[in-house]
Amino acid sequence: MSRALDAKPETTNARADYYGRIDKFHMAPLWEVLHKLLSHEPVTQASPHVWHYDKLRGHLLESADQISAAEAERRVLVLENPTMRGESRITEALYAGLQLIMPGEIAPAHRHSPSALRFIVEGTGAYTAINGEKAYMERGDLILTPSWVWHDHGHHGDVPVVWLDGLDIPLVRYLGPVFAEPYPAESFPPGHEAGDNIARYGVNMLPFGAQVPSQHSPIFHYRYAETRSALERLARSRDQDACHGVKMEYVSPATGGPVMATISTYMQRLPKGFHGATYQSTAAWVYNVVEGHGKTIVGDTVLTWGPRDVFVVPAWCHHHHKADSDSYLFSFSDLPIQKKLGLYRERRGDA
Amino acid sequence: MSRALDAKPETTNARADYYGRIDKFHMAPLWEVLHKLLSHEPVTQASPHVWHYDKLRGHLLESADQISAAEAERRVLVLENPTMRGESRITEALYAGLQLIMPGEIAPAHRHSPSALRFIVEGTGAYTAINGEKAYMERGDLILTPSWVWHDHGHHGDVPVVWLDGLDIPLVRYLGPVFAEPYPAESFPPGHEAGDNIARYGVNMLPFGAQVPSQHSPIFHYRYAETRSALERLARSRDQDACHGVKMEYVSPATGGPVMATISTYMQRLPKGFHGATYQSTAAWVYNVVEGHGKTIVGDTVLTWGPRDVFVVPAWCHHHHKADSDSYLFSFSDLPIQKKLGLYRERRGDA
Amino acid sequence: MSRALDAKPETTNARADYYGRIDKFHMAPLWEVLHKLLSHEPVTQASPHVWHYDKLRGHLLESADQISAAEAERRVLVLENPTMRGESRITEALYAGLQLIMPGEIAPAHRHSPSALRFIVEGTGAYTAINGEKAYMERGDLILTPSWVWHDHGHHGDVPVVWLDGLDIPLVRYLGPVFAEPYPAESFPPGHEAGDNIARYGVNMLPFGAQVPSQHSPIFHYRYAETRSALERLARSRDQDACHGVKMEYVSPATGGPVMATISTYMQRLPKGFHGATYQSTAAWVYNVVEGHGKTIVGDTVLTWGPRDVFVVPAWCHHHHKADSDSYLFSFSDLPIQKKLGLYRERRGDA
Amino acid sequence: MSRALDAKPETTNARADYYGRIDKFHMAPLWEVLHKLLSHEPVTQASPHVWHYDKLRGHLLESADQISAAEAERRVLVLENPTMRGESRITEALYAGLQLIMPGEIAPAHRHSPSALRFIVEGTGAYTAINGEKAYMERGDLILTPSWVWHDHGHHGDVPVVWLDGLDIPLVRYLGPVFAEPYPAESFPPGHEAGDNIARYGVNMLPFGAQVPSQHSPIFHYRYAETRSALERLARSRDQDACHGVKMEYVSPATGGPVMATISTYMQRLPKGFHGATYQSTAAWVYNVVEGHGKTIVGDTVLTWGPRDVFVVPAWCHHHHKADSDSYLFSFSDLPIQKKLGLYRERRGDA
Repeated sequence: MSRALDAKPETTNARADYYGRIDKFHMAPLWEVLHKLLSHEPVTQASPHVWHYDKLRGHLLESADQISAAEAERRVLVLENPTMRGESRITEALYAGLQLIMPGEIAPAHRHSPSALRFIVEGTGAYTAINGEKAYMERGDLILTPSWVWHDHGHHGDVPVVWLDGLDIPLVRYLGPVFAEPYPAESFPPGHEAGDNIARYGVNMLPFGAQVPSQHSPIFHYRYAETRSALERLARSRDQDACHGVKMEYVSPATGGPVMATISTYMQRLPKGFHGATYQSTAAWVYNVVEGHGKTIVGDTVLTWGPRDVFVVPAWCHHHHKADSDSYLFSFSDLPIQKKLGLYRERRGDA
Repeated sequence: MSRALDAKPETTNARADYYGRIDKFHMAPLWEVLHKLLSHEPVTQASPHVWHYDKLRGHLLESADQISAAEAERRVLVLENPTMRGESRITEALYAGLQLIMPGEIAPAHRHSPSALRFIVEGTGAYTAINGEKAYMERGDLILTPSWVWHDHGHHGDVPVVWLDGLDIPLVRYLGPVFAEPYPAESFPPGHEAGDNIARYGVNMLPFGAQVPSQHSPIFHYRYAETRSALERLARSRDQDACHGVKMEYVSPATGGPVMATISTYMQRLPKGFHGATYQSTAAWVYNVVEGHGKTIVGDTVLTWGPRDVFVVPAWCHHHHKADSDSYLFSFSDLPIQKKLGLYRERRGDA
Repeated sequence: MSRALDAKPETTNARADYYGRIDKFHMAPLWEVLHKLLSHEPVTQASPHVWHYDKLRGHLLESADQISAAEAERRVLVLENPTMRGESRITEALYAGLQLIMPGEIAPAHRHSPSALRFIVEGTGAYTAINGEKAYMERGDLILTPSWVWHDHGHHGDVPVVWLDGLDIPLVRYLGPVFAEPYPAESFPPGHEAGDNIARYGVNMLPFGAQVPSQHSPIFHYRYAETRSALERLARSRDQDACHGVKMEYVSPATGGPVMATISTYMQRLPKGFHGATYQSTAAWVYNVVEGHGKTIVGDTVLTWGPRDVFVVPAWCHHHHKADSDSYLFSFSDLPIQKKLGLYRERRGDA
Repeated sequence: MSRALDAKPETTNARADYYGRIDKFHMAPLWEVLHKLLSHEPVTQASPHVWHYDKLRGHLLESADQISAAEAERRVLVLENPTMRGESRITEALYAGLQLIMPGEIAPAHRHSPSALRFIVEGTGAYTAINGEKAYMERGDLILTPSWVWHDHGHHGDVPVVWLDGLDIPLVRYLGPVFAEPYPAESFPPGHEAGDNIARYGVNMLPFGAQVPSQHSPIFHYRYAETRSALERLARSRDQDACHGVKMEYVSPATGGPVMATISTYMQRLPKGFHGATYQSTAAWVYNVVEGHGKTIVGDTVLTWGPRDVFVVPAWCHHHHKADSDSYLFSFSDLPIQKKLGLYRERRGDA
């Protein structure tokens, strides 16, 4: 790099005086900040971090003593990136939180322009309803509540249910177009029978002549049982990727693209002993471990993980995975935002 | 709106204590901030504002005494939104600045992942070169330097030349993927003859069998003479839009879409006496007046404008235009970002 | 309709003489044929027809005595539309045939630019291999061999296996771009394990970062067991279409579009007692009955059908379905050709 | 090629007898025709041919004595490919004809599902009106009347006007979806002022917020003056293509794709002395010479051409161009049909 983009011209007295005079016109000299605005490579504010589920689980369950789901609207502990505290975000563009729902509780119906995913961490018997159609949660399931669809949560079972929420709230708030509204009645009317979305859209068929949404998947429930068996199968029959093992993206059957306009989602399988090659991308990645133990080395930071742990790999960080046992990792990313805006890059190896 | 999304649960002592205990796990209660994260409608941080060119021109020209184009890399006065000072932005996602180049000066070649437009405000004889192909500037011309193309500016004429820069720097920095590099040699080698891009792509034809970029226009010079005569012509032959008069978007001939992945650009004509209907959109709009005098009323704020003035209409603000004379307004917007992410909305009338 | 497009100007002696003189220049008067070239509505050459499987089965099986699969390359009886005999087509653009393979036989590997589908009519134990990956056939399965992929058929079982072939050969021959070649070696090398395509692409996931074909589905085996259970499920939970009952299109998970560039494929369920509303489309439809009995009334023609029967509904014919028992009908169509070329129309009711 | 796809199994007596027995079921043995259906490479029915305008002009003008434009509906001499006489086509999928209109005549308004282009060969003063908006014809202009738009022709000048018609009638008739209707009233009401489509869509801008058709260009008049000057300009500043010289495709500003769903159009410039490399494509090409003299060698056939001549290069024929003087050649092709259906191939050189 030459001096040009890295260095700042000297702030002489004459210049300082000038800056003062133009300030009242709401103008400022670009050359004082250009070196900060245009970096050679991405500079991330976020840090790599792992939330060990065993250590935080007790605190999470305690939230049920502090507040009901109904009073909280959504009883969630936000996972705040350690170097971006107070900003309700886990990476620059993404939000993550752990949501708890207790038997018999209801989290009331609302809708909002930010898109949300829920990845089930523990428990059974709870559901998310989309436009009144219920998706019953099992460990490892992915459930979507895309932008502006009505959704509520409830619980017909008898154990606490916890899931990881992933949203694009930071980005949508930054850009501006946040809309939200509670459902105007007591409860949302029942919709299609549970599982209808999978029967209708999840078998590589689409209704003849129907208009299917193009910005998000018409499926909103991706079951772990099927996801896992597909990955296990592929692990047998195919060479895995040097960086990612066997990594599959959940897609919309209507487009083959990401399940929501702003967030892409993945499940990957690392076999016992896997030692991945280095990878970096301008997207950031939030992981939840479904099965297995291992480490992800992000630059100089070693993130050691086991079942139910959440960890984050910030943008443009060199990282690689090691698996101590056959491992299944769910992840989500802001990759589609960057792809659509022509900004996505990735690099393999330690270039 | 019910209480649910607008109000925050009470912060009891027990809860405050709990928040303290989970804080060290980098966790925070969503219900304390949910009402701020999810607003009923967009809440913009930016304010409507007009920069009157006559008042600031002297200060702008003085910048040439303070620093050379070469030392500054780009000699630009950033137009900072009055309620977002110090952030180098004019709206949430967009940057604007006035750039000055003096006869004989050179602004050296570099490239960066943010996309830039230049709209010529005054003067003649300067040029922008894209990959070595020069576009000579005239008042009202639009010149593009899209993401990651090499570009430099120079000046063969004898009067100061000023243009309005519009970039997506705030968004790209927020998301993360900022890349930049200076051209490694003294000067960029000459490319195609000036005007080549217009001959090749600007006449409703494309080279047979060629790969044309899909994320930005292959044309990088849109001349005002042609833009203006098209609008004048349409003003004769067609009813105008109640909100916008005759408003045309500059498009890429390869896609019919916006000229760059993140920024869309427009020229509109308001006839003398035009009194527009109210309009609001989740996109924000930065205007530069080419010809004419009038007012834009943004909520309670009246922005009075004349030739060369720059004004900004923040997202989701009700606004309408009034023209005292036949007026030509250039504008740019973050609309394509929101469209691609499924977040764009607009509303006509005072709903 | 006025006279203009329906009638032909008189052929006077002077005109006839003139036509003779221009003939040697390979020119002919449009006005003598315009009324035939431009019809008010589509005029189809094809006729509605049903092939009753019970009546033809014996003849089909006899083909095994006449010729081996290897000698025939493909042992198929072409279903020729009764009013287009000798043209190897069942509708204007589509070809259909019944292919027989006997235990132990092999139909050698080749590839061709026309696209093919195989819908299994009877038997078990045979397979189609695509690039060496086998798909084992069961009654009601859909197997694809899209344009230019290597494929061969074989049989590890012990009963005759019959399937319905559907191809776009007539169209491709009409347009011109027919390419074909036999595989140069004795046999095609083994590819992925059977079922790999379904594990990789059939579970609403796609491999991260992989290039997936966009002109045809990466899945080439759609199993009836899953298709049927999805339709049965939807029949419970949803109002059916007045014309089509519950009708689903097989789609490519990479695009949400048709499984091949030129042919779309469907399965529909008509409940016992269904009496459909009238429908017509510019596409033509070839049906194979999987289960059930009923009638399809095409204009004045009544096509009575039961299991394994094949019937054809030509383009733009008014038709409606009646079901005497719960019925499952597979169909394929040239609809995507017409959609892509901007020519498709459909009409519901007896307009 | 092995024997498999090229040869036909022997027709034994037993087989012949069998074929007779299955014939009444409307079934026929594929293996008797497979070698004809699946050729190694495309086999075209069309021949290369040139229509020398000087020789046929007298005959063409005589048509005005034989019939009026009104009586003929369209007074056109169809250019029939010499090896496909009586089929009203110049290549497999395309129709071409020379249309004559005399001063004061009118060719009445109608619309049809086939798409049409008109390329002006001689004369001035005539017009085509699209939905009532007139396009005044000059030598070398391209005028479009896409599928299902109302159009009529008239003549305000005082010399005969001749243009080349290009349509997709053969394909649309083959597929089936031909619709046509005359305008129900005496004359079509006046529409936008002449040139409106160019002002609105032809300057690399599109109306803000408007819906623009996606299957054909919103521009329907491409003027030769602009086309020619762009090509002349490019000939100065850029290396030409070894096969095509400088060849540009007319595109829709709304998509960057072909001007109509089924037909693409081109203008190419060959400099004096050009001796092109060999080229072949699965598309067929119909040329009209605007300026210059030269030869196109198609296999063993030499087509010698000069101004106003029409010549045809059938699909998959090796061909190359030679220019004796600076030449401008218009052409149209069925390439977009084949591209959309995944069937297009091309090859450069004598492979």
